[in-house]
Amino acid sequence: MSDQHETPAQASVEDNLKQVMDLLGRHRLVESLVHKQELSRPDMPRHELVESLVHKQNLAELRKHLDQLHPADVAYILEALPLEDRLLVWDLVKAERDGDILLEVSDAVRESLIAAMDNRELVAAAASLDTDEIADLAPDLPKDVVQELMKSLGSARRAQVESSLSYDEDSVGGLMDYDFVTIRADVTLEVALRYLRFLGELPLHTDKLFVVERDGRLIGALPLKRMLVHDPEAHVAAVMTDDPVVFHPSDPAEDAAQAFERYDLVTAPVVDPNNRLVGRLTVDVVVDFIREQGEQDMLQLVGLREEEDLFTTVWKAAKNRWLWLAINLCTALVASRVVGAFEGSIEKLAALAALMPIVAGMGGNSGNQTSTLVVRGFALGLINKDNARRILTKELGIALLNGTVWGSVMGVVTYLLYHNAALGGVMAAAMLLNLLVAAVAGYLAPAMIDRLGRDPAYGSAVLTTFITDSMGFFIFLGLATVVLL
Amino acid sequence: MSDQHETPAQASVEDNLKQVMDLLGRHRLVESLVHKQELSRPDMPRHELVESLVHKQNLAELRKHLDQLHPADVAYILEALPLEDRLLVWDLVKAERDGDILLEVSDAVRESLIAAMDNRELVAAAASLDTDEIADLAPDLPKDVVQELMKSLGSARRAQVESSLSYDEDSVGGLMDYDFVTIRADVTLEVALRYLRFLGELPLHTDKLFVVERDGRLIGALPLKRMLVHDPEAHVAAVMTDDPVVFHPSDPAEDAAQAFERYDLVTAPVVDPNNRLVGRLTVDVVVDFIREQGEQDMLQLVGLREEEDLFTTVWKAAKNRWLWLAINLCTALVASRVVGAFEGSIEKLAALAALMPIVAGMGGNSGNQTSTLVVRGFALGLINKDNARRILTKELGIALLNGTVWGSVMGVVTYLLYHNAALGGVMAAAMLLNLLVAAVAGYLAPAMIDRLGRDPAYGSAVLTTFITDSMGFFIFLGLATVVLL
Repeated sequence: MSDQHETPAQASVEDNLKQVMDLLGRHRLVESLVHKQELSRPDMPRHELVESLVHKQNLAELRKHLDQLHPADVAYILEALPLEDRLLVWDLVKAERDGDILLEVSDAVRESLIAAMDNRELVAAAASLDTDEIADLAPDLPKDVVQELMKSLGSARRAQVESSLSYDEDSVGGLMDYDFVTIRADVTLEVALRYLRFLGELPLHTDKLFVVERDGRLIGALPLKRMLVHDPEAHVAAVMTDDPVVFHPSDPAEDAAQAFERYDLVTAPVVDPNNRLVGRLTVDVVVDFIREQGEQDMLQLVGLREEEDLFTTVWKAAKNRWLWLAINLCTALVASRVVGAFEGSIEKLAALAALMPIVAGMGGNSGNQTSTLVVRGFALGLINKDNARRILTKELGIALLNGTVWGSVMGVVTYLLYHNAALGGVMAAAMLLNLLVAAVAGYLAPAMIDRLGRDPAYGSAVLTTFITDSMGFFIFLGLATVVLL
Repeated sequence: MSDQHETPAQASVEDNLKQVMDLLGRHRLVESLVHKQELSRPDMPRHELVESLVHKQNLAELRKHLDQLHPADVAYILEALPLEDRLLVWDLVKAERDGDILLEVSDAVRESLIAAMDNRELVAAAASLDTDEIADLAPDLPKDVVQELMKSLGSARRAQVESSLSYDEDSVGGLMDYDFVTIRADVTLEVALRYLRFLGELPLHTDKLFVVERDGRLIGALPLKRMLVHDPEAHVAAVMTDDPVVFHPSDPAEDAAQAFERYDLVTAPVVDPNNRLVGRLTVDVVVDFIREQGEQDMLQLVGLREEEDLFTTVWKAAKNRWLWLAINLCTALVASRVVGAFEGSIEKLAALAALMPIVAGMGGNSGNQTSTLVVRGFALGLINKDNARRILTKELGIALLNGTVWGSVMGVVTYLLYHNAALGGVMAAAMLLNLLVAAVAGYLAPAMIDRLGRDPAYGSAVLTTFITDSMGFFIFLGLATVVLL
């Protein structure tokens, strides 16, 4: 992206959205008025001229407003609009900004916009982008558009796109760009400054030049700040930092994000195994990555993939959520069969049916507290075999304490409700035992998923809840059957 | 923080952690060997000299290793260590780095480190920091330390700390720093460059100078990039951007974070209502804020406050989780009373007890899918009264579709399990109805919390689950009672 949009309008994004919806509302109102008029007086000639004039006026105003907005602000508005309005606004956006905007919207909205464009428009939109941005967009484009696009690129740019596409989306290679300025170590700052003036414009976010050998090997970084404050006669080699944080294209993006956060980086060089400079990572893509990861973690907790926007069609959204509901139906069925095994006991003492969800539910809540902490520990690499037992012991200790406290409370409540001391005792014991089960499940579920090489963030909650539900029912109904019946 | 730690060691953070734990292990091993020897042969004289030599050697190596690490890496190691090892390592860290490291650790670990320091150490550690950093630390310090600290600061720095402390932690004022370089518009770039050389060092992350009037009003920003590529004879006024993104100290930090993300900012000026420059926001604190927010959202979903590290004491951790368990116990009790009202029906048909958790559970899962999307919509400001009805309608549509599909599946499964067609019908109908309830609850719960001016991220899940549980039991058992008994 070029410099031109670095200074967005100062009106807040919510204000922009309101203004656009206002203009859209006026547009729709005119449409519906004309439509009503037609319906109520089919004999009258259509006031086509008036209609189209008012239409055009509203749309022209809307277009003017959109032209003033930063691509990210247009993207925000598109996210908040239902499909028909979204496509109307999309039509009004200047074609040369299509590419930048497509990069900013979420996957789901991007899909809906791309579906509304023809191949020629798509090729034109994508061709205006940087090569790393083309690679970001390519997976969402129709195959023939990508082919046409690749043909239209020069061989150097095509090679960059192909190399970007070869890396995993969540790796450093998938996030890096190719917009860096290199300099040799044996020139003076004066020469370097003249070179920059010759370039005329520096890539977005450039805070340092990369110092390379003749064969492309990285030997240091020269922060712009240092160029400004040091004597122009000094040599680059004397002023540069010779040990910058570097990444490799195959590094997980999450590691790079943590390093950016830890070392407060703005840009960092990416090198191949021979230490040759191949790309650059910038803080803006890292920020986007961190935000997206956070959102995905939240959405995936309830089995939503990212590809659902607020206005997806019912059919698509339902399909998106099916897998999750199916998995949960299966685990619920298993838990239900556990209860089914004790139907005889429940017939004799129906109070068991009313009390059993409490045991299961408290176990689920407690287990998910543990598993959330453990998942976070694995994500940050804070858990290893030396401290694992200590963490599990601590969780069991907490469960023992909480189980004793809340088990006693529920035991008393149960006695007060049913005037049955033995039932109260069973309740208290079951609660304590299930909280201990929950501590083990909350630790083992993520640990097992991690051992299998998968991300513990997904599945830990389902697995933990499944165990605490089934075991909660089993412990409570089993104890009750043995003690009470 | 100064420039000196911009180039951390290249060894991965996990490797560093392993090395430290290794050295600690050797240290502990020596300790335990000496201890065992004492126990088994109390008659033997203690080999004090040998012991202390080996000890010292291990600790010296550890200290050397720690000295080479970036403060953020030391912080990472402290997070992964149990309390006793953590304090041992903390003792080995050079005192002048204490402040930087305290800034990097999580609140819970910071608390444990501060508890191990005396007032003199704390004042020394804090005094080495920038004023905005002192303000970050101050709320965690003992009151008398803060008083002593404030006395030790000059009046200008004290005023900055006091101003920082006056802002909410989650506002722009709470995140901003005071390290910016200002320049006047009527000088040439040549003069500006000479000024920078005179300064000798620029604050971390400086990517632009702030252009101000004589009275401190902000009139533009001069990116360093532009200084480098433009003719030195040009005036600042001609080269600067005159419409930079600005923030106010009272703006919510979340809004600023979204703006940094949207407009790809590295630094941004903060101005008072009269447009006078009062501070600066940098991308590194924004990145930290985004990451912390994401983590807090995850932790708070299960009722964990941030102040719990992996090795908190059992007692503290249990207290941290009580409120949540208490709330959930209350909602579970209410749901249990709903079941209790139908104990007569359950006595007659115990199958109801086995099936009812499925209806409640599927409603909870489905409702939380809706509420997660809606919470995200509110957080991003994508939901307003113009599109609210459309979103609710869509969610009801999805619930209708999913309810019909999964209701039918469960109806058939129920029939196969119990050979009771009417029971299958009741199951199917209850499932469909509870999924519709879940869609409404999943929308209304966050909408209501938002209307009350609170963050819908907290409480939406509990409220949604409470409604789907209670209503699921009520619908299923009620229908069964009417239809079957």
